[in-house]
Formats: sequence, C-alpha cells, structure tokens
Amino acid sequence: FPYKGDSIQILFVCRDICPILKDPKALAAVTDLFEEHVRRTYPQVDLIVGLDARGFLFGPLLAQRLGVGFAPIRKKGKLPGPTLSVAYSLEYAKAEAEIQEDAVSAGQKVLIVDDLLATGGTLYAACELIKQQKAEVLGCLVVIELKYLNGSEKLQSTPVFSLIQY
Amino acid sequence: FPYKGDSIQILFVCRDICPILKDPKALAAVTDLFEEHVRRTYPQVDLIVGLDARGFLFGPLLAQRLGVGFAPIRKKGKLPGPTLSVAYSLEYAKAEAEIQEDAVSAGQKVLIVDDLLATGGTLYAACELIKQQKAEVLGCLVVIELKYLNGSEKLQSTPVFSLIQY
Repeated sequence: FPYKGDSIQILFVCRDICPILKDPKALAAVTDLFEEHVRRTYPQVDLIVGLDARGFLFGPLLAQRLGVGFAPIRKKGKLPGPTLSVAYSLEYAKAEAEIQEDAVSAGQKVLIVDDLLATGGTLYAACELIKQQKAEVLGCLVVIELKYLNGSEKLQSTPVFSLIQY
Repeated sequence: FPYKGDSIQILFVCRDICPILKDPKALAAVTDLFEEHVRRTYPQVDLIVGLDARGFLFGPLLAQRLGVGFAPIRKKGKLPGPTLSVAYSLEYAKAEAEIQEDAVSAGQKVLIVDDLLATGGTLYAACELIKQQKAEVLGCLVVIELKYLNGSEKLQSTPVFSLIQY
C-alpha cells in the first residue's frame, strides 16, 4: 500500500475505513489504486456497481474517474421502481439484495465495488443479480479482504482485487 | 438545472437519484454545482459529512473536489469505535443517528450532504451531532428538496442549498 499517512496506520489497527475517508490524500490514493488496476486489467468496463452502504463511498468516485456510470445494489425495499432481487444467507440471518431492473443492460461489462470482503455472501448475491440481467461481471474490487474467511473461494471464478489483506 | 440529458427528465418524473448515478455526465454536473456553490459561499469549509446511505453517493465526490475530508453519519450500531449519538423521530418510528467521536474536531466548519430533504428530521439530528462536538454547521446540501414538507423550517438557521425543488 503506497500511501504512508497516519490514517493507514489506524486502519491497520481497527479495520475501519473511516480514517481513509477523513484524509483526502488517503481517499485519493485508494481511488488511484482502483483506477490503475481497472485501466490495466479491465479497460472494457461499462459500469461500476456498488453495495449499500459502504460500497457507495468508493464506487461513484471510481466510476467518475473512469467516465462510466454507477448503479447501487441495496437491501430489499430500498430502491424505487421495478427491481430484481436475489436472496442470500448471512451467518446470522437471511437477506435479499436488489437492483433496479434498468440499471444494467444485457452484455454490459460490470465491476462490483465494496469496502470489505468477509465471507463473500453479499458480493456473491450481487454477482448473481448482474448475471440475471445477462450482463458480465468482470470482477470485484474491495478495500479490505479478510483472507481467513475464504470469501474469494465463494465467489468462484470471479476475480477479486483487494488493497489490504488480513 | 443546467444539465439537459435524458437522465434528468427521468429524475423529474420519479424523484429517483439513480438516473443521475447511471449517467457519468449527470453525476459530474451535480458535483460541479455543489462544488461551485461551496467555493463561492463556504470557502472556509473543513469537512463534508454525509448521511447513510444516499449521502454517501454524493459526499465523498464533493469532498475530493474540495480537497477536504469526509465523515459518515449512520444509524445506531453501524460505526466502529467510540461514537456520539442523537435520537430523532421519523413520521412512523424513532431512530438514532451516530458519528464517530473523533470524526469532527471542535471549531471545524462542516457541510452536511444528503440526497433528499423531506421533513428534515435526519438532517436536523445530523446538525445536532456536529454541534455536540463543538464544530460549526455551515449548511446542508441536497440534490432534491420537497418544499411542501417544510424541512428547511425544521432546520431553522441552518441554510439549505438544493439543486431541484418540488
């Protein structure tokens, strides 16, 4: 991680993304790293999708850098208009992820952004929603990956890019 | 509203911010308008605060344009570490808004960003949280203001800047 400010030290201690947001240089550095990775690896990307709520903090910044659109995935009942939904399990409950029906077009190439990859349940549901719309998931981008929870295995063939791993 | 794309027409029909996000030019135009207003009216701003979840879509973009930090306000129990909270009433329930204790410093000049001003309950609670930390709320910025709900009256002396009014 090339940015050496105090904020990143704090992040390493408590796995909290708020210190990145508080420091404009740290947030710019995170966006730079995502942008460089996408330009090198996925120059064909059409759309950034972000997960409610902390994916909303990073997704629109990246989408604007790349000059592409952004679409939110939210918990059931939060998005207006016609939606598609997918049910998924958390460790302690069941949940449903939704996207607007017209958010993604067939054939679009999509990257999914969130702050954290833990067990991968929500990101897996997000991938399913995109595929339901006959669009292609190029990969997932997260700030922090908790490697010991094996979330990237759950995501199977979808590549995960993370900036910090534990 | 200077941007004349299809997305904005859709927005006028259903009061949904998703068409803005989907169109990178529309999202850039919204951020431009916020940035111009802040540079003209509040050049002294130190920090942008955004409300969970849709304030997260616009707040970090504005903070990065201005070169200042961003801090999230969330519903109770969602933020790690020591927090401060304020209870407030919605039409149909009670809620509690929280901010991290170290998110705002005494004396800082703060702008609060959200997507929509309706009755103003959540923005009022956000203002109270900032004032509890002895910081100053310069104003609130929203994309859409529902004028007929008189939210800006509830916010009393805190000025509200909105891009679209109904």
